[in-house]
Amino acid sequence: MTADLVLYGYWRSSAAYRVRIALNLKGLAYESRAVHLVKDGGEQHSDRYRALNPQELVPCLIHGDQVLTQSMAIMEYLDDAFPASPLLPNDAGGRARVRALAQLVACDIHPIGNLRVLQYLGSHFNADDAVKGEWSRHWIGEGFKALETMLASSAQTGRFCHGDTPSLADACLVPQYYNATRWKLPMDAFPTIQRVVDACNALDAFAQASPEAQPDAPPSH
Amino acid sequence: MTADLVLYGYWRSSAAYRVRIALNLKGLAYESRAVHLVKDGGEQHSDRYRALNPQELVPCLIHGDQVLTQSMAIMEYLDDAFPASPLLPNDAGGRARVRALAQLVACDIHPIGNLRVLQYLGSHFNADDAVKGEWSRHWIGEGFKALETMLASSAQTGRFCHGDTPSLADACLVPQYYNATRWKLPMDAFPTIQRVVDACNALDAFAQASPEAQPDAPPSH
Repeated sequence: MTADLVLYGYWRSSAAYRVRIALNLKGLAYESRAVHLVKDGGEQHSDRYRALNPQELVPCLIHGDQVLTQSMAIMEYLDDAFPASPLLPNDAGGRARVRALAQLVACDIHPIGNLRVLQYLGSHFNADDAVKGEWSRHWIGEGFKALETMLASSAQTGRFCHGDTPSLADACLVPQYYNATRWKLPMDAFPTIQRVVDACNALDAFAQASPEAQPDAPPSH
Repeated sequence: MTADLVLYGYWRSSAAYRVRIALNLKGLAYESRAVHLVKDGGEQHSDRYRALNPQELVPCLIHGDQVLTQSMAIMEYLDDAFPASPLLPNDAGGRARVRALAQLVACDIHPIGNLRVLQYLGSHFNADDAVKGEWSRHWIGEGFKALETMLASSAQTGRFCHGDTPSLADACLVPQYYNATRWKLPMDAFPTIQRVVDACNALDAFAQASPEAQPDAPPSH
């Protein structure tokens, strides 16, 4: 099988999940190639994958001769290269708001709780699963508290994070919410986040991007 | 004093430093308002500042009635609102590369070593300055190793991260380099990073954005 767009990802990677949502929202078909993040010490550390992405992280998107890394840069690229069904609003202020909401998740929540950081907490601080859970809930909770305020207090919030069209912000929020539920973060304090996530997950573009819907997801987990 | 652009920042904040570079590269005058991140438990946690940025982080840029947060979103906004002296190349592939290099720093290095994370390591893992230093050098080193490979192996790298014009990527790299030297990360393994940083710091736009050049920098530290 050859495809114009090839996505290297992992079913449960938050960053790969974002890009799947963006591809689906734009109606772009792609070939999915799994990079198992845990098996054999992690396929992302293989020479073959490192040649694509020296950061040894997923996702990586191939488009023709372009090798694209960093999920936020990839989603912006998709909006640049395939302008239909834009992921950003058409005014500078709206774009700034959507990018800020997206980056609140992509910069200030997700990287702190990423697999490699949890592995380091285990190896250097003897953190067990309970301590890793406390760490994860703390940072997701801090971020969601701010995000809830920003969403609930703005007239620009609509059915989705920004108005009634899903954007880059929703593509970041939904995977982070999925991660939060894995860590059993109570959601009572985040009604607006919950409402927006529910609206997103009612759409095929989001549902089909979910970890459980991926070919590399284990039958049960 | 009134100003069209008001930047809330802190002399040594990496994220505020990025935005100062971007403002200077575009030749935009701005009023600087200091938010002391340490004094009295941190002015970023005050009610007054939280009303501007519920994340309680710097920077925050005010432009007319726009309140902008997240340094990457702010820099993209500046490029949107003030197109002269662009911070991104004019081709989609180039923009994706610059954004990926910028986000490597902004997502995968900086947030993991940010003040609030180091404070948490101290309060929850009894990490002292030596352990915080080891943590910081580890994550900056991981990121710089990948960044060095990406810069050294690409024909698109020029005098700066992308060609011969400073971009969003340089605006992220220079503050992260400054932070790396604070933590005494050896730079021998990163000759391309070193060369690019030196080229940047030879420009007024970068020099005038440096922490030591800010009005709120202490006389000696």
